[in-house]
Amino acid sequence: MSGQTMLGGGRENAGAPSRVTALERWLVRRLLDMAGRPPVAVALWDGEDVEPGATAPAGRIVIRDRATLWSTLISPELGFGDHYSAGRIEVSGDLVEVLYRLFCSMEEKGATTLKRTLLGRLPKSRSNTRSGSRHHIQHHYDLGNDFYRLWLDEHMVYTCAYYPTPDTSLEDAQVAKMEHVCRKVQLRPGQMVIEAGCGWGSLALYMARNYGVRVRAFNISSEQIAHARERARDQGLSEQVEFIEDDYRNISGRCDAFVSVGMLEHVGLDNYAELGRVIARSLEPAGRGLIHTVARPRPCPPNAWLERRIFPGSHPPSLGETMRIFEPSRFSILDVENLRLHYAKTLIDWLARFDAQLATVRKRYDEEFVRAWRLYLGGCAAGFLASSIQLYQIVFALASENHLPMTREHVYGAPASTWRLTR
Amino acid sequence: MSGQTMLGGGRENAGAPSRVTALERWLVRRLLDMAGRPPVAVALWDGEDVEPGATAPAGRIVIRDRATLWSTLISPELGFGDHYSAGRIEVSGDLVEVLYRLFCSMEEKGATTLKRTLLGRLPKSRSNTRSGSRHHIQHHYDLGNDFYRLWLDEHMVYTCAYYPTPDTSLEDAQVAKMEHVCRKVQLRPGQMVIEAGCGWGSLALYMARNYGVRVRAFNISSEQIAHARERARDQGLSEQVEFIEDDYRNISGRCDAFVSVGMLEHVGLDNYAELGRVIARSLEPAGRGLIHTVARPRPCPPNAWLERRIFPGSHPPSLGETMRIFEPSRFSILDVENLRLHYAKTLIDWLARFDAQLATVRKRYDEEFVRAWRLYLGGCAAGFLASSIQLYQIVFALASENHLPMTREHVYGAPASTWRLTR
Repeated sequence: MSGQTMLGGGRENAGAPSRVTALERWLVRRLLDMAGRPPVAVALWDGEDVEPGATAPAGRIVIRDRATLWSTLISPELGFGDHYSAGRIEVSGDLVEVLYRLFCSMEEKGATTLKRTLLGRLPKSRSNTRSGSRHHIQHHYDLGNDFYRLWLDEHMVYTCAYYPTPDTSLEDAQVAKMEHVCRKVQLRPGQMVIEAGCGWGSLALYMARNYGVRVRAFNISSEQIAHARERARDQGLSEQVEFIEDDYRNISGRCDAFVSVGMLEHVGLDNYAELGRVIARSLEPAGRGLIHTVARPRPCPPNAWLERRIFPGSHPPSLGETMRIFEPSRFSILDVENLRLHYAKTLIDWLARFDAQLATVRKRYDEEFVRAWRLYLGGCAAGFLASSIQLYQIVFALASENHLPMTREHVYGAPASTWRLTR
Repeated sequence: MSGQTMLGGGRENAGAPSRVTALERWLVRRLLDMAGRPPVAVALWDGEDVEPGATAPAGRIVIRDRATLWSTLISPELGFGDHYSAGRIEVSGDLVEVLYRLFCSMEEKGATTLKRTLLGRLPKSRSNTRSGSRHHIQHHYDLGNDFYRLWLDEHMVYTCAYYPTPDTSLEDAQVAKMEHVCRKVQLRPGQMVIEAGCGWGSLALYMARNYGVRVRAFNISSEQIAHARERARDQGLSEQVEFIEDDYRNISGRCDAFVSVGMLEHVGLDNYAELGRVIARSLEPAGRGLIHTVARPRPCPPNAWLERRIFPGSHPPSLGETMRIFEPSRFSILDVENLRLHYAKTLIDWLARFDAQLATVRKRYDEEFVRAWRLYLGGCAAGFLASSIQLYQIVFALASENHLPMTREHVYGAPASTWRLTR
C-alpha cells in the first residue's frame, strides 16, 4: 500500500503544484524534532523552507511533491533513499556534509528514533540461508567487474582501506590495509590461510605473493571468483591460491590463519554461532583469526534502504553481537581496532572517483542508478563520520594458544622478535 | 547441610584411616572425566592414585579424608579452595603448573562443567549495592597496607603490569602499564582526569607527575585512600590530585579522560548501564575513556571460592557483557587489547615475592591464610595462562568525537603528530 492511496496524497501535475498544508509542515517539523533538529534546511514543493531562518544550514533537502513527503514520513529511511534516487528528493550543498550533520543529530538523539516514526515499524534483515545468501550477494557483487573497475583502486579492493598518513593514495591505503591484516595475523612462509569472502581476490594474492603462504579463498559471487582466478593465473599464483566458489558454511580443511574482510555484514546474526564453529574446526591450535567488519555502535536494525536496495540481507552487528561468534566457541579475543574514520576516507575517495567517471557510468546505467550509488557511497561516508557505523578489525585465537606476541609492536613495524611468554 | 551429614562421610580418626570405597574412586574418576582428564594425578587418603600409571603427570592432588572428598564432589570450586587452604587437600609439584594443566583441560571440555557437578548448582555473585560494595571492598583491600607492601612493587600497584620485554622487572612493568594507559588516553598537560577505583593512588600520581594533569580519584577502601593521600602530600601533589572516598556512582564533575583500572570486576553486571551513564555524563565531548578489567572468555559465573573467600561480590564479565556499559550510552569502542599473559606474569612475580616474605607473613597470619593467598595468586596465574580468565584494556570515546588518532602508533612511541582526519 503506497502513501498515495493511504493518505490521499497524489503525484503533482507539473503545471499546478498543490498548496502545502499546515499539517504537512507540522509533520516535517515533528520529523526534524525526532531527528534532533539537524542544521539542515528542508523545503517542500512550494519552494519554502519549513523552518525559515535557520542559521547557516549545512545544506537543503527539497521534497518535490506530496506523495514523496507522505511515503517518506511513513518509512523515512526507505522513502528518503528511493525518492532521492528517483530525483523526487534533492539535496543541495555537499551530499556527504548534509548527511553527516543529519546523522550526527540523529545519533545525539538516539539512533533508532527515525525507524519508529508514525507506523512504529522496525525493518528486519532477510535471512541468509545458503540460497538466500547467493541471491543477495549476486544482487550487489555481480553488477559487473567493469563497473567496479571504474572507481575502485587498481587492486579492486572493495573494503575499508588503511591510511597511515593523510596523503596516502587510495591505492597505497588498500595495500597498507592488506599489510595491516597480514601483520595482525602474523603470517609466515608456508602457512595455510583460509579466507571467507575474498572479493576479487586481492588479499589472497597479496598474502601469497608477499608472505609465501598458500590460500584457500571462498566467495559465492561468480563474477568475483572468475576474475580472481584470472588474476591468479596472470600472476602465476594459481598453485598457491585456490579460489573456491562456495559458501563459508562449507569450508573444510585446516589453516594457520582464518581471515574474513567484509563478509560478516552479509552473514546475519542467526548464523554467527555457526560461523564460530566453522572457524573453530578450521583453525590449527596455534592459528590466528581476523574478522574485519562494518558494525553499529549498538544493536540496531540495518538502514532499511541500504538493506533493500544496495545490500540485501545485510546486517552490521554491534561489537557485542559479534561476540556470538567467539564466546560460544573456545576463542580468546586478542585485539580490536576501530577503523571507522579510515572507511569514511575510503568512501570519500571512492565517491570522488565515481564522480570523475560519471560520463562512463551514465552510458551503462540510468540516472536512478547513478543517484542511488552516490547516495550509498556518500551516505556511508557520512555514517562512518557520524559514528552511526563503525569498522572493526577483531583478532582472535583459540583460548589454548599461548605462543602470542606480548605487545602489538609487530603491527607497527617492530622486528618480529617481539617477545613471547614461554609457558 | 554438610557433605558429612548428607552422605555419611566423616572426618577420619588420625590413627585409622578408613578404606576408600569403589564408589568414591568411581566418583573421582567421573569428576576427572568431567574436567577433561587433566594430566594430574589424584590420590585419596589411602595414598593410592585413583588412576595409577598416568604418564608424567604435572603433579599430584592428595585428598586427605572422606569428608573433604565428599564436600569437594558437591561443590568442586569452593571445596577445593577451602580444603586446600585448610591443608586437607595438598598439591605436590608446581602449584601454578598443576592448576594450569587442570584449567586447560577444563577449558577444553567446557568451562562451566565443574560448576554443575552432582548438585547442578551455579553460584551467583552477591549484589553490589552502595553499602554492599563498601563491605565487599573492605574485606579484601583493607587487609592492611603493610601486608600488600610486603609483596607488591614499590609503587603498590595491584593490577596487571605490562612487560615490554621479557626481562622487565615488576617495578618497571607497573610503570610501563601506567605509561601504556596514559598513552592510550592521550593525556595532555592541564587536562582533568577522573579515576574510578584508584587503589593506593599510583596511577593518579603518575599521571599528575608525568603528564601535568589534574586527577580526581575515587575509591571506597578507607585504608587505600588514607595511604594515597599521604603519598600525594609526600610528593607535593595534593593540589593536583584529589583522593575521594566515595562510590563511582557518586562521581560528579567533568573530565577529559575517564580511567578505571581493576574496578569493573567489583561492579557487577546489574550496574554496568549505570556505570555507562556516569561516564557519559562525566566525559567532555573530546574525552577518552579506558577500562582495564579481568574478564572471562564467555559469560560465566565467577569462581565460587574466589567470590566467597577472596573477592566478595566480584564478577569478571565476558567482553560481550562489558558492552552493556558502552552500547546503551553513546560510546564508540576504539581499541581493545588482551593482556592476559601479562597478568599471568604479574601474578607469578607476586607469588615469588609473597613466597620470599613467607616468614614475615606467618608472623601476622595463620597457615590457612597463607595457603589461601598462595592458591589465589597461583590459581589466578594459572587461570590467565589457561585463558579461563582474560585481561582487557578497552579504550572508548563518545560517538561524536572525530578528533581521533588514525593509527595506534602513538601507543608505541611514535611522535604525537599521528595524523587526524580534519572533519
